[in-house]
Amino acid sequence: MSLAFHIHSARRAGRRATLTLPHGSVETPVFMPVGTQATVKAVPQQLLESLDVRILLGNTYHLYLRPGHEVIRRLGGLHRFMSWPRPILTDSGGFQVFSLGDLRRVTDDGVSFRSHIDGSSHFFSPEHSMDVQIALGADIAMAFDECTEYPADRARARASLDRTLAWAQRSKIHFDAHKHEVPWNNQSPEDKSQLATGDRGLTTDDSQLATGDWGLTTDHCPLSTVHQSLFGIVQGGMFPDLRRESAERLVAMDFPGYAIGGLSVGEPRDLTLEMIAATLPLLPAGKPRYVMGVGYPDEIAEYARMGVDMMDCVLPTRAARHGLLFTSEGRLNIKNRQYAEDQNPPDPSCACLVCRRYSRAYLRHLFTAQEPLSAILNTLHNLAFYLETMRKVREELAADPAPEAQR
Amino acid sequence: MSLAFHIHSARRAGRRATLTLPHGSVETPVFMPVGTQATVKAVPQQLLESLDVRILLGNTYHLYLRPGHEVIRRLGGLHRFMSWPRPILTDSGGFQVFSLGDLRRVTDDGVSFRSHIDGSSHFFSPEHSMDVQIALGADIAMAFDECTEYPADRARARASLDRTLAWAQRSKIHFDAHKHEVPWNNQSPEDKSQLATGDRGLTTDDSQLATGDWGLTTDHCPLSTVHQSLFGIVQGGMFPDLRRESAERLVAMDFPGYAIGGLSVGEPRDLTLEMIAATLPLLPAGKPRYVMGVGYPDEIAEYARMGVDMMDCVLPTRAARHGLLFTSEGRLNIKNRQYAEDQNPPDPSCACLVCRRYSRAYLRHLFTAQEPLSAILNTLHNLAFYLETMRKVREELAADPAPEAQR
Repeated sequence: MSLAFHIHSARRAGRRATLTLPHGSVETPVFMPVGTQATVKAVPQQLLESLDVRILLGNTYHLYLRPGHEVIRRLGGLHRFMSWPRPILTDSGGFQVFSLGDLRRVTDDGVSFRSHIDGSSHFFSPEHSMDVQIALGADIAMAFDECTEYPADRARARASLDRTLAWAQRSKIHFDAHKHEVPWNNQSPEDKSQLATGDRGLTTDDSQLATGDWGLTTDHCPLSTVHQSLFGIVQGGMFPDLRRESAERLVAMDFPGYAIGGLSVGEPRDLTLEMIAATLPLLPAGKPRYVMGVGYPDEIAEYARMGVDMMDCVLPTRAARHGLLFTSEGRLNIKNRQYAEDQNPPDPSCACLVCRRYSRAYLRHLFTAQEPLSAILNTLHNLAFYLETMRKVREELAADPAPEAQR
Repeated sequence: MSLAFHIHSARRAGRRATLTLPHGSVETPVFMPVGTQATVKAVPQQLLESLDVRILLGNTYHLYLRPGHEVIRRLGGLHRFMSWPRPILTDSGGFQVFSLGDLRRVTDDGVSFRSHIDGSSHFFSPEHSMDVQIALGADIAMAFDECTEYPADRARARASLDRTLAWAQRSKIHFDAHKHEVPWNNQSPEDKSQLATGDRGLTTDDSQLATGDWGLTTDHCPLSTVHQSLFGIVQGGMFPDLRRESAERLVAMDFPGYAIGGLSVGEPRDLTLEMIAATLPLLPAGKPRYVMGVGYPDEIAEYARMGVDMMDCVLPTRAARHGLLFTSEGRLNIKNRQYAEDQNPPDPSCACLVCRRYSRAYLRHLFTAQEPLSAILNTLHNLAFYLETMRKVREELAADPAPEAQR
């Protein structure tokens, strides 16, 4: 089995569940840190594990360009390449490609674009996105979609929705035909055993740094039947009826999980909420629901209570590098002069390894002096704050038993 | 007692000893990583502790300019400011100031210079250097010296030597008169107790990350008699007789430890070795000897076998940020294309947390993609390699018992 989703309990629409994937299990609702180029910027994998990160997101577009998906395939897939034994989700590359603006051209067949690195020409189709994502070998791959821009009028949103649905079908057909080619299944039995036990024979001393579920969770997933799972993506712009149509036609294709895309692309926050609220009830209750690219801490908590199971966003990591810390007392801009001699931790209510050890004065100094440790510590804190936010929501949702309908 | 130096054993000139300082003990010979701006670039203090770093170097010039020594004094000193409970050594600021070239002017009184950050005007005298270093509160402070440039003719080296000796005397007088002002002694009894037990009440769970000797080693150092120690610096250019004169006159001033300065400033490697060899026998056998600003791994091992107890250098950390790794097989330039699909660890003989977990292919990718994790992992490996180099030398030196003369 490649994916199992077990709902433990629910409180109104929100639900507390366990998502079991080939590389381990994930307690949901979950926030997934973004590891664009096979690294969560400025954080060693050991520290991600100590934060109890269970699933990371990788960006297909970036990894395709550098180091290249074929390189990663030859090196055993993304998990092994970046030495991350726990689950990974890759996006389809669509969002990044559409963000290129003048560098790309879209047809029904796919997208031509130029690399933001060296200007070289490339082409992504649904089939190619699947090939790249299978080479990367994340636990969850995403259908190739067109992320509808904001604002988009009804005609544009409909055309984009139709294209995304056609691409979802092509994605699924190609994925199903090729999913056995995932690098885990191309490895020799010896390699598989290495994968399952740790790459280089970690000793007991390493276990505190390299804990976790390196390798496949073979207990319930015999290798021969384990592969990636492909999620479909709902589009439809800011039109509830188009969202409904997108969701219904996508659900008819029977994906193991569904994402709501095309949000957090510049629209007002109320509208994001409205689109999520309009779409969630149309998705199968027993399957994971993923809202892409959100959000602020209060937003992800709110969406989780509404029934969203998975979210990702560059906000905590990117904001950290700009000196913006999320705390239980609100946002804190660490570069402000008022913190120059402030001996308090960034967030007095936070128990993360940054707040337990370092003062605002020190973090401000690191930022001002442009020291690399600034990005490291700020990112660690923001990720810890996001993960703790979701942990609290999970605790809250665990208070009620699961309704029969969702079991 | 502020400093104790106990020699356990020796092999020819080299010796294996324990240096006990107010913030903990250091096994020597030791390599001290450089933490210029109150951080070893790109490495969290937790990971420095996991590497078993026992003593760090801080740069007085940089900390004076930013965040300012008075800020650090008010925040309890450098240990508390950067949350580093183990020993620290600060340089005098002299080397950095002299490196400013046209931005500085030297007289017998001191050095006028302009900040490399904002062009503001400043003046460092021996007395001011002491005031700044006492405010920072490192376990070991350095006398303010003039680092003689290379090449320098005999007349220039003599003049520079005379100035350095006069400044050493002034440094010592001012230091002795003000050493009780170190921030540890300005703290209330409550603060002292916090310092000795950890700043924010670390829980047991933290101990694996925040191990070590936070606070003063009060067992044998009652707080009232604990202060910093001031080391003198031998100069004399590349003239053995001037080195001798510098050493003899400095030893007459009776410092608790001695540094050999003005080396690794562009001279050939043979000459560095010759100056160290000429100077070491002139320094008291029972006190620590520190060669400033060296060197490559084979150099630090060689100097340690000659009787050098302490060394520091930016080489392992700076080279790491440029993709140069030191390994048991020699230097490895991680950006080379040949490593693009190399699954081996950086150094197959190394047991550091980088070599146990990451491949050359991954490290090359991080460097090429300009990811912050590149500097983090490369620095961790290089520091681990330097520390392991010194650990092996200590093991080698421990094989022979200490000769009576050195006890």
